[in-house]
Amino acid sequence: MAIKKIGTQTVKFDSPPIITGTSSTVGPKEGEGPLSQYFDVILKDDLYGEKSWELAESKMLRETAKLAVENANRKLSDMEYMFSGDLLNQLMSASFAARDLAIPFFGLYGACSTMTQSLSLGAMIIDGGYADNLIALTSSHFSSAERQFRFPLEHGNQRKLTAQWTVTGAGAAVVSSLGDGPQIDYVTTGKVVDLGIKDINNMGAAMAPAAADTIVKHFEDTGLPTNYYDLILTGDLGQIGKEITEELVLDKGYNILKNYNDCGLLIFDNGAQDTHAGGSGCGCSATVFCGYIYKEMMKRNLNKILLISTGALMSVTSSQQGESIPGIAHAVSIINQGS
Amino acid sequence: MAIKKIGTQTVKFDSPPIITGTSSTVGPKEGEGPLSQYFDVILKDDLYGEKSWELAESKMLRETAKLAVENANRKLSDMEYMFSGDLLNQLMSASFAARDLAIPFFGLYGACSTMTQSLSLGAMIIDGGYADNLIALTSSHFSSAERQFRFPLEHGNQRKLTAQWTVTGAGAAVVSSLGDGPQIDYVTTGKVVDLGIKDINNMGAAMAPAAADTIVKHFEDTGLPTNYYDLILTGDLGQIGKEITEELVLDKGYNILKNYNDCGLLIFDNGAQDTHAGGSGCGCSATVFCGYIYKEMMKRNLNKILLISTGALMSVTSSQQGESIPGIAHAVSIINQGS
Repeated sequence: MAIKKIGTQTVKFDSPPIITGTSSTVGPKEGEGPLSQYFDVILKDDLYGEKSWELAESKMLRETAKLAVENANRKLSDMEYMFSGDLLNQLMSASFAARDLAIPFFGLYGACSTMTQSLSLGAMIIDGGYADNLIALTSSHFSSAERQFRFPLEHGNQRKLTAQWTVTGAGAAVVSSLGDGPQIDYVTTGKVVDLGIKDINNMGAAMAPAAADTIVKHFEDTGLPTNYYDLILTGDLGQIGKEITEELVLDKGYNILKNYNDCGLLIFDNGAQDTHAGGSGCGCSATVFCGYIYKEMMKRNLNKILLISTGALMSVTSSQQGESIPGIAHAVSIINQGS
Repeated sequence: MAIKKIGTQTVKFDSPPIITGTSSTVGPKEGEGPLSQYFDVILKDDLYGEKSWELAESKMLRETAKLAVENANRKLSDMEYMFSGDLLNQLMSASFAARDLAIPFFGLYGACSTMTQSLSLGAMIIDGGYADNLIALTSSHFSSAERQFRFPLEHGNQRKLTAQWTVTGAGAAVVSSLGDGPQIDYVTTGKVVDLGIKDINNMGAAMAPAAADTIVKHFEDTGLPTNYYDLILTGDLGQIGKEITEELVLDKGYNILKNYNDCGLLIFDNGAQDTHAGGSGCGCSATVFCGYIYKEMMKRNLNKILLISTGALMSVTSSQQGESIPGIAHAVSIINQGS
């Protein structure tokens, strides 16, 4: 067997798994943003015909899964595993979507790092020979997240300028052993990093050290130069977190200033749309990757991507108990075949 | 490459991963139960020197991890991945334990199915060649679970006779590519099954259909006779769920009446300890497996085990919205080498 583990936290695939299809669904506000044209479905109403925001989120996840499978020219019954999670307590969206989809289900919680967590595990399961097709997917919903983590929307609380805006959206990717589409060459799995930030209105700063740690580890483990990638893209650090990450990575001797961006800065026009420091939520990197990035890769406008979804692992309970916010980030290297 | 997937939901390992060491920690009540002698650590006080039950739970998980690594004759720095989750919102126990342990971390949520979910994924990652050692672990805590899912303990609510008692405990298993100990031959990954039960005081009944589905699938996929196993052991169905499972499995033509039990019926003396229908929680199958079963396997009193941890994927929000309880169960076949 070839050596698959390189360095301390990175896997290099013998038979790189292929992302044979994706799909994305977003809410009305995301549909008015700069990436509007890239999303498969834009909801007119964030209740999506359901009686609660949580059920709407679960429906988004379920319907996005079905469309991704269709886009990958496969059938739902071809999906051997579903790797999914979301922000809701006990994964209400993913658990209920898994019930309806009836695919063997591994529930994940990595907060907003779920997109790359699911792609990382999915890629190992495909390359390892345990499945030929599976689906990796996640979602978030502004209204279900606000009321769970912060305040009822009816309070009309003023939002701090460091705060981010949870994306209403779901992204799904079909990972296969054979087929057309960009391939997953490496995954770098993150450790939990916590530098002591306690401000739940400044999640970008809380997650930045974890993002920087995983990015640096990726380049250390692979030996690749940072300019190997057309784009290095974190999940939802927003403006403040992005700047901290650039600095922390530079401190370790890696310069990513020219080819680094953050999904939270791409999905909204943060000035005009009043989203403050940027987009956030599992759905942020999920919809930006499964919508914008995947489509630009298929057009060969982008060929080599390092996607690092980023999660803040706090809960209402941990915050109320005065604990700081642990961060995590997982990196997935996605490369156009033959590029 | 040899065929690894057999049937529709089961993986058979080429190089069966080995459980090279385990550890278990339980609370005072569990320490007074019938399996008392099998646990490595019995807490005198369920706060474990911490200022909250949630932090106590996280400390249990962390300390149990360290002891499992020691029992496996390995170092913490040998652990390449940590697969863990718990019942708390946003995995407060596992996330904070992962921060302290500083091992690359995959957070899982499968409710009380987490022990076999983490063993299943861990086994695929070891057999696939992505790591040589990793740790699979989970916890639950009666007091943190009661106040999150039900009522503040201070209310002194009367508990229904169908209710179960969440185990205070943590179990951890080191899974390795080489070494001594029982091996993992098969994993059967469950689908979410929901027959419409809405009573959160009768979780055994809600989870039983998922348990039965996975057990039947395991025997269909592997072609093994049900008496192949010395013991078929579900996670935390309790008395009511166990009886339903026996019937549902028998309906499908598989008789497990002679060699089937449930961890929730083993960990407490449910009559004398007033735990009603039985033990429950992620910690139930985790401590029974990592304590009792593993030690009996090492003594060769038990040689062939099918462990099926069982999860109820509801949340407070889903229950309040009138939704039924989705169940899930994952099966892991654990066999003494040379038996």
